[in-house]
Amino acid sequence: MISRDDALALDAADPLAPFRERFHIPDPTVIYLDGNSLGMPPKRTLQRLTEVYNEDWATGLIRSWDHWVDMPQRVGDVLAPLIGAAPGEVALHDNTTLNVYQAVHAALGLAAGRGHKRTVIAISEDDFPTDRYVVDGIAEALGLTVRHGFDQLDDVAVMVRSVIDYRTAELLDVAAETARATAAGVVSVWDLSHAAGAVEIDLHACGVELAIGCTYKFLNGGPGAPAWTFVDRALHASVRQPIWGWFANEDMFAMGPTFNPRPDIARMMLGTPSILALVAAEVGIALSAEAGMPAIHAKGSALTGFAIELCDQYGLATPTPRDPAKRGNHVAIQHSRAKSLVKELTARNVIFDFREPDIIRAGCSPLTTRFTDVYDGVTAVANSAPTEIAPGGST
Amino acid sequence: MISRDDALALDAADPLAPFRERFHIPDPTVIYLDGNSLGMPPKRTLQRLTEVYNEDWATGLIRSWDHWVDMPQRVGDVLAPLIGAAPGEVALHDNTTLNVYQAVHAALGLAAGRGHKRTVIAISEDDFPTDRYVVDGIAEALGLTVRHGFDQLDDVAVMVRSVIDYRTAELLDVAAETARATAAGVVSVWDLSHAAGAVEIDLHACGVELAIGCTYKFLNGGPGAPAWTFVDRALHASVRQPIWGWFANEDMFAMGPTFNPRPDIARMMLGTPSILALVAAEVGIALSAEAGMPAIHAKGSALTGFAIELCDQYGLATPTPRDPAKRGNHVAIQHSRAKSLVKELTARNVIFDFREPDIIRAGCSPLTTRFTDVYDGVTAVANSAPTEIAPGGST
Repeated sequence: MISRDDALALDAADPLAPFRERFHIPDPTVIYLDGNSLGMPPKRTLQRLTEVYNEDWATGLIRSWDHWVDMPQRVGDVLAPLIGAAPGEVALHDNTTLNVYQAVHAALGLAAGRGHKRTVIAISEDDFPTDRYVVDGIAEALGLTVRHGFDQLDDVAVMVRSVIDYRTAELLDVAAETARATAAGVVSVWDLSHAAGAVEIDLHACGVELAIGCTYKFLNGGPGAPAWTFVDRALHASVRQPIWGWFANEDMFAMGPTFNPRPDIARMMLGTPSILALVAAEVGIALSAEAGMPAIHAKGSALTGFAIELCDQYGLATPTPRDPAKRGNHVAIQHSRAKSLVKELTARNVIFDFREPDIIRAGCSPLTTRFTDVYDGVTAVANSAPTEIAPGGST
Repeated sequence: MISRDDALALDAADPLAPFRERFHIPDPTVIYLDGNSLGMPPKRTLQRLTEVYNEDWATGLIRSWDHWVDMPQRVGDVLAPLIGAAPGEVALHDNTTLNVYQAVHAALGLAAGRGHKRTVIAISEDDFPTDRYVVDGIAEALGLTVRHGFDQLDDVAVMVRSVIDYRTAELLDVAAETARATAAGVVSVWDLSHAAGAVEIDLHACGVELAIGCTYKFLNGGPGAPAWTFVDRALHASVRQPIWGWFANEDMFAMGPTFNPRPDIARMMLGTPSILALVAAEVGIALSAEAGMPAIHAKGSALTGFAIELCDQYGLATPTPRDPAKRGNHVAIQHSRAKSLVKELTARNVIFDFREPDIIRAGCSPLTTRFTDVYDGVTAVANSAPTEIAPGGST
């Protein structure tokens, strides 16, 4: 039997435990298992926002654009080592919806440039909604076909996939799946929203050409923090995207008559980026960079493994893979009244999130989640009434 | 002869003068005439960021999305009265580049729906670069023709125009130009980047169906603050845009199989918006709403009129219209060495901006710019050497 003392012992032995002190957690009794939706705020974030407000905005005024203008790439360079990208290959900009839209268009252009006349985009019907909707919209606009699933690839132009399933936490073998796609002539777009800052991944070693992701989950970049785009440097001269904005233009302040995309990752930029959002994102990303992905991934695996052991102990069902090499940093708990239970627990400061139809997600953020949080949270689920209690209900 | 005492007298009589106290201006000796590029920071912005960081992000955590989720529309409602829009017709989201892209696609859809088979998009060759580049990109993708200028409209599907010219400050007659376009069967997209929070405009009275703009200039929303989209409510059921994201979907948390655009302005949304950026934007917009557009426009006209009088006094050329009904809130000063002079003056804390080829822009932000700023700034231009001084140069 696992006990709370076991959780305390694991916390005491956790090399990343001191990182929790770097976050602003006004109520340490909150059991927060939703950092996979919104990461907690680093203490330094408010310091940096205050500094940038005072020194850059109020004092520097317009002059601060001299150093703000390439901030999307500078913060991208902070993120790059966390995903196996090289400096200059990542830009923080816009949001994942937009970045998927650009990346799919870019991938279709690459596919066409490689001589294919294929008209199929492949995506999982279980993928995150915004990825599916974006693909549906592009297919409708261009008269392409969307296929759900990846069994048949020989007629596919572009495949869009999430590294980690947002419900089950299944972690794909990105290297193998990219290699299979590449061998079939398919251009891959990978969504790392649940992977960046959660699991070790080396995009170059995996042969990935195009990837996108968010920074508000495990990277603790703040609510609605900017997303990012990775493009393999070998494609920087040839990749195109359909939204031509001044931040992607060579010599943007010449404001000349024609759009000539920059030769670097900035060609994926659109318009003026939010500096406040970038400042917050940078702080969160830098904390993960400081901890390092090996330590982060190891603790994530330990936390989710602990959660699965607890599920087993309590007889709670989970579709999350038991092989740590095949799962991300959350555990899906299936529960007959998942939706109402998440609400009840939230009211008691035990915070999970709910995903249709019957999933309670227990997010394990390696920099902030304690083993005791996992113990207390999963135990609270187990101790809750398994079925709805009738209003005013006796029995 | 206008003297500095005249400027002091105008400041003393200015009903909006107390608003300057609402901004954080660490060095009051700075002569800032570039609020048309980046508005100054309201004091309340840092307070609100701190509150949202502490109360919403750190304390509320994921629960805060319950009230964040419709923040783009709520802040849109704060902006709406400043541009003659009704509640529910404006959403703050993304950036002007993206919003122009969406709006032009939306307009092309409306044009097609009205039975035209036209293939021309009209835009001025003098329009702001990002607007032109976006239009060029769409035309290339869809096989359309871009025409520079608006003399011939009878074969035009969509016209894209800025209400105020970013160089000369010329303010168009939006009602007349929209009516002329509508009569010719053209769908108009108006860019209010230099107009919102600067001049009185009533989009409904002007018959405008689609408009976009930014909030980091006269609305003081912060560097790279979110842009906005206005869609006439009569079009909410029919307008479409090509980037289908989960924030635009009906019942977004059902995460269902198909994208069904929301019936309201939120169908122009894409993905997760930056909350920190929206918080800052809301504070800036609310200050302008508190001051009211009649007072703001009146002071803007007075400031630019004063700047033009000074230009005349000093023999400085300006292409900015002399009729206050035909100009926005900046004055373009033509100068043979505009670029180097702007640099020199900036180093002396007299801040204008430069626009190719020979324009010094004097931005007049009604909530922060003093008549003495205009006096000191234009006088500093007049007192500068009219031609380059040779390095180390005698004579």
